[in-house]
Amino acid sequence: DFMHAFENDVKPAFGASQEILDGFLARGILPWGNPVRDVLDDGALLIQQAASSDGPGLVSILLEGSPNAGKTALGAELAKMSGFPFVKICSPEDMVGYTESAKCMQIRKIFDDAYRSAQSCIIVDNVERLLDYGPIGPRYSNLTLQALLVLLKKNPPKGKRLLVVCTTSRREVLDQMEMLSAFTDVLHVSNLTKSEHFKVVLENSGVFSKSEMDKLLKKLAGYKISIGIKKVLGLLDMVKQMKQDKMIKFITKLEDEGFIVLNV
Amino acid sequence: DFMHAFENDVKPAFGASQEILDGFLARGILPWGNPVRDVLDDGALLIQQAASSDGPGLVSILLEGSPNAGKTALGAELAKMSGFPFVKICSPEDMVGYTESAKCMQIRKIFDDAYRSAQSCIIVDNVERLLDYGPIGPRYSNLTLQALLVLLKKNPPKGKRLLVVCTTSRREVLDQMEMLSAFTDVLHVSNLTKSEHFKVVLENSGVFSKSEMDKLLKKLAGYKISIGIKKVLGLLDMVKQMKQDKMIKFITKLEDEGFIVLNV
Amino acid sequence: DFMHAFENDVKPAFGASQEILDGFLARGILPWGNPVRDVLDDGALLIQQAASSDGPGLVSILLEGSPNAGKTALGAELAKMSGFPFVKICSPEDMVGYTESAKCMQIRKIFDDAYRSAQSCIIVDNVERLLDYGPIGPRYSNLTLQALLVLLKKNPPKGKRLLVVCTTSRREVLDQMEMLSAFTDVLHVSNLTKSEHFKVVLENSGVFSKSEMDKLLKKLAGYKISIGIKKVLGLLDMVKQMKQDKMIKFITKLEDEGFIVLNV
Amino acid sequence: DFMHAFENDVKPAFGASQEILDGFLARGILPWGNPVRDVLDDGALLIQQAASSDGPGLVSILLEGSPNAGKTALGAELAKMSGFPFVKICSPEDMVGYTESAKCMQIRKIFDDAYRSAQSCIIVDNVERLLDYGPIGPRYSNLTLQALLVLLKKNPPKGKRLLVVCTTSRREVLDQMEMLSAFTDVLHVSNLTKSEHFKVVLENSGVFSKSEMDKLLKKLAGYKISIGIKKVLGLLDMVKQMKQDKMIKFITKLEDEGFIVLNV
Amino acid sequence: DFMHAFENDVKPAFGASQEILDGFLARGILPWGNPVRDVLDDGALLIQQAASSDGPGLVSILLEGSPNAGKTALGAELAKMSGFPFVKICSPEDMVGYTESAKCMQIRKIFDDAYRSAQSCIIVDNVERLLDYGPIGPRYSNLTLQALLVLLKKNPPKGKRLLVVCTTSRREVLDQMEMLSAFTDVLHVSNLTKSEHFKVVLENSGVFSKSEMDKLLKKLAGYKISIGIKKVLGLLDMVKQMKQDKMIKFITKLEDEGFIVLNV
Amino acid sequence: DFMHAFENDVKPAFGASQEILDGFLARGILPWGNPVRDVLDDGALLIQQAASSDGPGLVSILLEGSPNAGKTALGAELAKMSGFPFVKICSPEDMVGYTESAKCMQIRKIFDDAYRSAQSCIIVDNVERLLDYGPIGPRYSNLTLQALLVLLKKNPPKGKRLLVVCTTSRREVLDQMEMLSAFTDVLHVSNLTKSEHFKVVLENSGVFSKSEMDKLLKKLAGYKISIGIKKVLGLLDMVKQMKQDKMIKFITKLEDEGFIVLNV
Ligand SMILES: Nc1ncnc2c1ncn2[C@@H]1O[C@H](COP(=O)(O)OP(=O)(O)OP(=O)(O)O)[C@@H](O)[C@H]1O
Ligand SMILES: Nc1ncnc2c1ncn2[C@@H]1O[C@H](COP(=O)(O)OP(=O)(O)OP(=O)(O)O)[C@@H](O)[C@H]1O
Ligand SMILES: Nc1ncnc2c1ncn2[C@@H]1O[C@H](COP(=O)(O)OP(=O)(O)OP(=O)(O)O)[C@@H](O)[C@H]1O
Ligand SMILES: Nc1ncnc2c1ncn2[C@@H]1O[C@H](COP(=O)(O)OP(=O)(O)OP(=O)(O)O)[C@@H](O)[C@H]1O
Ligand SMILES: Nc1ncnc2c1ncn2[C@@H]1O[C@H](COP(=O)(O)OP(=O)(O)OP(=O)(O)O)[C@@H](O)[C@H]1O
Ligand SMILES: Nc1ncnc2c1ncn2[C@@H]1O[C@H](COP(=O)(O)OP(=O)(O)OP(=O)(O)O)[C@@H](O)[C@H]1O
Ligand SMILES: [Mg+2]
Ligand SMILES: [Mg+2]
Ligand SMILES: [Mg+2]
Ligand SMILES: [Mg+2]
Ligand SMILES: [Mg+2]
Ligand SMILES: [Mg+2]
Repeated sequence: DFMHAFENDVKPAFGASQEILDGFLARGILPWGNPVRDVLDDGALLIQQAASSDGPGLVSILLEGSPNAGKTALGAELAKMSGFPFVKICSPEDMVGYTESAKCMQIRKIFDDAYRSAQSCIIVDNVERLLDYGPIGPRYSNLTLQALLVLLKKNPPKGKRLLVVCTTSRREVLDQMEMLSAFTDVLHVSNLTKSEHFKVVLENSGVFSKSEMDKLLKKLAGYKISIGIKKVLGLLDMVKQMKQDKMIKFITKLEDEGFIVLNV
Repeated sequence: DFMHAFENDVKPAFGASQEILDGFLARGILPWGNPVRDVLDDGALLIQQAASSDGPGLVSILLEGSPNAGKTALGAELAKMSGFPFVKICSPEDMVGYTESAKCMQIRKIFDDAYRSAQSCIIVDNVERLLDYGPIGPRYSNLTLQALLVLLKKNPPKGKRLLVVCTTSRREVLDQMEMLSAFTDVLHVSNLTKSEHFKVVLENSGVFSKSEMDKLLKKLAGYKISIGIKKVLGLLDMVKQMKQDKMIKFITKLEDEGFIVLNV
Repeated sequence: DFMHAFENDVKPAFGASQEILDGFLARGILPWGNPVRDVLDDGALLIQQAASSDGPGLVSILLEGSPNAGKTALGAELAKMSGFPFVKICSPEDMVGYTESAKCMQIRKIFDDAYRSAQSCIIVDNVERLLDYGPIGPRYSNLTLQALLVLLKKNPPKGKRLLVVCTTSRREVLDQMEMLSAFTDVLHVSNLTKSEHFKVVLENSGVFSKSEMDKLLKKLAGYKISIGIKKVLGLLDMVKQMKQDKMIKFITKLEDEGFIVLNV
Repeated sequence: DFMHAFENDVKPAFGASQEILDGFLARGILPWGNPVRDVLDDGALLIQQAASSDGPGLVSILLEGSPNAGKTALGAELAKMSGFPFVKICSPEDMVGYTESAKCMQIRKIFDDAYRSAQSCIIVDNVERLLDYGPIGPRYSNLTLQALLVLLKKNPPKGKRLLVVCTTSRREVLDQMEMLSAFTDVLHVSNLTKSEHFKVVLENSGVFSKSEMDKLLKKLAGYKISIGIKKVLGLLDMVKQMKQDKMIKFITKLEDEGFIVLNV
Repeated sequence: DFMHAFENDVKPAFGASQEILDGFLARGILPWGNPVRDVLDDGALLIQQAASSDGPGLVSILLEGSPNAGKTALGAELAKMSGFPFVKICSPEDMVGYTESAKCMQIRKIFDDAYRSAQSCIIVDNVERLLDYGPIGPRYSNLTLQALLVLLKKNPPKGKRLLVVCTTSRREVLDQMEMLSAFTDVLHVSNLTKSEHFKVVLENSGVFSKSEMDKLLKKLAGYKISIGIKKVLGLLDMVKQMKQDKMIKFITKLEDEGFIVLNV
Repeated sequence: DFMHAFENDVKPAFGASQEILDGFLARGILPWGNPVRDVLDDGALLIQQAASSDGPGLVSILLEGSPNAGKTALGAELAKMSGFPFVKICSPEDMVGYTESAKCMQIRKIFDDAYRSAQSCIIVDNVERLLDYGPIGPRYSNLTLQALLVLLKKNPPKGKRLLVVCTTSRREVLDQMEMLSAFTDVLHVSNLTKSEHFKVVLENSGVFSKSEMDKLLKKLAGYKISIGIKKVLGLLDMVKQMKQDKMIKFITKLEDEGFIVLNV
């Protein structure tokens, strides 16, 4: 019958989603400092709350931070930590060129599927892109905004549990859209800001020699630092392939693109 | 014939609506203070007016208050109190991704159905969402606004009674849209603002020991308080699961999220 | 043939329209003061002009006044007074959720039908709603505005007579839209503004005792009054059902909602 | 063949158009003063130019003046004076509720038809309405504006003659739209502004006695006057039906609606 | 096969286009002064460049000047001078009431056809109209703008030659749209500004006697002059038909419409 | 099966793309100065990074510079240098008159095709045109912007390599649209700004004699220079065809169009 057909339509996308999660986490989560630990701790608490049988069974988390800060990877990590069997990725990458309403239908379908599983986790990646946010105007899809505002607060059916993890690099835009209050909690994904943070990443990479690292860390002492983990890994990828002057190139790039700025 | 077929199409959704009402009221209405009583008293009067055979047989109420204040639960309570047999929920949760006109058609259908019952109650939940209100722009569905403005003032057919209960957390937006004057009455759903309000809720929850509560209430004396009942219950759900430091966590959260602020 | 089929399509909606007119006038027209008489007198003159065989046979009247002032009832009264056999109601209540163009087609059809009758009267109720006027933006249906601007000035075919009665509670909006000059005459529907006005209505209602009324009227002497007849009747409906303190409740309501304000 | 079928499709609407022209001129053109003569003289010259075999064979005239000034009647008069056999009326009254593109197609068709006749005259009545001009916004149909801007300057095929007569009561709007320069000439249709103007009309109407007229004209001496001929005729129609006090009513109306204002 | 069918579809519209060109040039190009010679000289150079086998084979010219300056005629003259066998007119007159996309498709087709001919010339007349430029708003067709911006810079296939001649009376609008830089060169089409310019045209027309002309030219000495050749010819057409007072009428018109202004 | 059919649909457009690349490079890359070398060096490094098996396998480059600076040619050069077998051109020239969504679908298809090849290079030419950027308003296609923002950051499937080379002459517009941060690197394509730059190009062209060149270079010493290589080549094409005064014409043109400005 109808309900049966409908249920059968629900094939929890373990395979596909698991693969994507693994992709997000291909380079793992390096514990480069306290900010990383804080996100994971707070996340663990919220996951526990989501899983508990008290309350309405809905927890929604926003991971916000600058581009390249590691938001998507941490979102994937939280999804893994939850152990919820039904995991679904809702990402703008899969909806390039979709009309507003096709996009909304897709989002709605993902949530509808989740409501039919006992414990579900939905990762909504890059919310500002999902909303088609264009800063000139500004423009955005109000249809999608309304859909998210409603779905982020809609309780799953009695007895079901739902964890929603969203990521964004435009916290202030979501704030203007009055989306922030729709989340159970908002967690900040921080950039690397201290030389100790660098130390952990550089040691782990094995790109530089001990003496090169010492020189770098000494130099960084006098600088204000702010760079996302994804950018650091990218720069290391690049210099790794040079025969010489790796460290010089690395520092030059950091300075040129403004990731490190001399303290005044 | 046509009228017959049409009538048959009307299956007062007792079942479904009743279930949703119960969902809204799953945690009941805790009488935590006078503001709660006021809403219920005024509501009772308006229900009486709606039911009376004098006048045009239409009463429309707006429950407005900040997010988490308990608007939806109180709206459901009023619907129950009316005892009207035909109850229908008109909620944005059921219309995610609908086009403007599909939404209007749905709303219109709900009212058309109601006009065919002797005594009907319609709950229109979260009006600003139903209007697709987006603060950047701002944007909203004028088609839906017009539909509501007309339907909120349209008398039911002779002899029929209609009670409409709307909820919103954006009173000022509805004011700008000149919707407020379309209601028979506007009732304010208040946040908890006094330590006595807290006392009732905490005692009822059984989460803290007597001494913990005393400590909390003493501490709150010096604070300005404003928090919705749904948020309080959520925080209690969370700390309930901790092994220790429940009270500390509870107070920290209240302070961090700005629900209590030290008096100057 | 075609013309015949077309003519047959025209079933002057005596029945339906008459019923609606009666609904508008269910509570009659209470002659509570001079402003009422003025509207009816001016209306009578304009009706005479419409009926006369001189001139182009078109008279269009705008009844404007604040919400609840009694505009729709007075419009219906004028239609009745005209004695024109073909009466048609053009009301936003019948077009909830219509697209702009469906609305225009409907309006156009009503006028086209009227042109085929020797003497027609069209009531266009609540023009600002028909125009989908939304104050944020502001927004309105330009298609409908254009249609009305043209139809309000379009002469009926030679020998036919047409009386158009419009109502609005947003005179200033229609003014901005340059609609006012399209009317033959604009009549103001006034609120009750004097205690004598109240006296007529209260005596007619029989809700209060003579002494209660005296007390009220004495009290009102020191107040600035402005309230629509529909609101007065509504409040009376409400207090009528109370066992005691009717007068106190009545006055409290008048004061709370700002209908009476102490003179300074 | 195609061209033949096409040509046959062209049934110069002598009948219909003639009837409409007669309607526009039902009350004739009263020569109430010099402004009337000026329009007719200038019009005669322009018609001559249109008919002459020199030049590109296109003359387009804009008749502009306040509402009720007599623009449409004078436009019809010019069309008659031209003696051109193919006359077509392009009026918003015939396109109520049309979409932008349907309107444009209709306009285009009228011009296309005209190009196929040796001598054509097109009356484009009430241009601002044809453009769907709505003052709030403002809004207008750019598609229609573009169509008119092109068609007003497009020469008819070699050897064909085309006279276009447009009317508007919103000269400044057409100016903003840069339409004015598209016309061969712009003629002003004036209101009545002197008591002598009134004298001609009143004498012609036979509504008042000689002594009444004298009284009126004497009184008007001290006033600033500005009223359209259509309005004057309308007021006369109205007072004509009164048994007494005709002149008083007439003057009261003139003063109340601001058509005559005391000189300071 | 496909390519064959496609090629057959291309019937270089020698006939039609030639006829239109002749229409544009029906009154010839009067060499009334240096500005005319300059445009023709510069045009000759650019045509040579377009025809040469060096370079990418694309030259695009914008003829800009006030209304009636003679832009279209000079554009047609350049097309003739080129001697290119494939000439196509892209004019708003042929696209009245077209949708944006129909217009773009038409434009695209004209260019696509041109790319298939060894030497083509495209006249794009009245660009601001093609762009549906409406000054209130302002409004324009961005789709058409983008199409023109791309097509004006798109090289024809290897070995093919393309000359594009555009005309506009709204240089500043095209400038704001950043279209000017898309042209190889922008040539100014000037108004008549000196009495000598007038002399050439008047002598050529034969409308006035020698003495009349002398009087006129003497009078003009003290005036600032600016009038398009098309307007001059139009005024001459008009006065030509008068029996007397030709010169007076001519001068009056020049003054009234502001084409000549007394020097201060 | 489906995947098979899908794969077959992918016919890496070696032929077509190669031809277009050759067209872009028909006049080669003249090494007129350091700015040219810098772009090629930086490009080489980025190509190496794209090809390396470390990292996510995605490098995206933006070539920005004023109109005629040589952006497209340099983009084509980089594509050639990469040696990647699958090269695809995504250019507005191929999408004239496309709707937003057709354009997006086309872009998406190009990227989807690329993901299926081991090593792909996509040239996205003239990004501001692809975005339908119109400066009045301003207007742009938000759908296309969102598509590009997502695709420029979307990693190819595991093991695949993708190099994206974009060009634009409106860096500040892309900046406002927050597109710049989506690129791995932004390279500036410079105009010629020194007389030495001119020297290289003039010598290579063979248009002028040695003495003419000396004169020019001496003259340029006192000027501020800024001109794109494409413009220089165009002017040379033009003067090349003159019999005499080539150098004078060349200098006049440079001055008239503001490419060289006297130092103050
Ligand atoms: N502590 C960490 N936190 C997050 N990511 C880490 C950490 N350590 C290593 N990584 C790696 O860094 C990369 C972070 O990239 P990710 O896509 O998550 O960043 P992002 O903030 O989502 O970027 P964008 O702003 O582009 O969306 C991943 O490859 C991840 O495996
Ligand atoms: N006195 C009370 N008033 C309202 N709700 C109460 C009260 N006591 C307990 N509750 C419970 O508090 C919760 C209030 O949640 P509800 O959804 O009604 O809030 P809301 O104001 O509608 O929130 P939102 O702003 O998200 O729409 C319900 O679970 C309800 O059972
Ligand atoms: N003198 C009166 N004038 C108008 N209405 C009267 C009068 N006396 C009694 N009534 C009654 O008052 C009511 C007026 O309601 P009505 O709907 O006409 O008001 P309205 O101004 O159209 O309201 P709204 O602004 O909501 O459209 C009607 O029930 C009418 O029968
Ligand atoms: N000298 C006159 N000029 C114009 N109309 C005249 C004159 N004398 C009498 N009339 C009559 O006056 C009326 C003018 O009405 P008309 O519809 O032409 O005015 P209008 O300016 O077009 O009005 P609107 O602004 O509503 O379009 C016609 O009935 C016409 O017959
Ligand atoms: N020297 C001249 N230059 C241009 N046109 C001339 C010249 N001498 C005579 N003419 C005639 O003048 C007329 C110019 O009209 P044309 O349509 O070209 O003007 P335009 O500037 O395109 O007008 P518009 O602004 O309406 O498009 C043509 O009939 C042309 O034959
Ligand atoms: N060093 C150089 N760099 C770039 N182009 C060069 C160079 N030397 C010669 N050229 C030639 O100059 C021309 C540059 O034209 P190209 O179309 O690349 O410019 P563009 O900046 O893309 O122009 P547009 O702004 O119109 O898009 C090409 O023909 C190219 O072969
Ligand atoms: Mg991310
Ligand atoms: Mg709620
Ligand atoms: Mg009403
Ligand atoms: Mg008129
Ligand atoms: Mg022209
Ligand atoms: Mg380029």
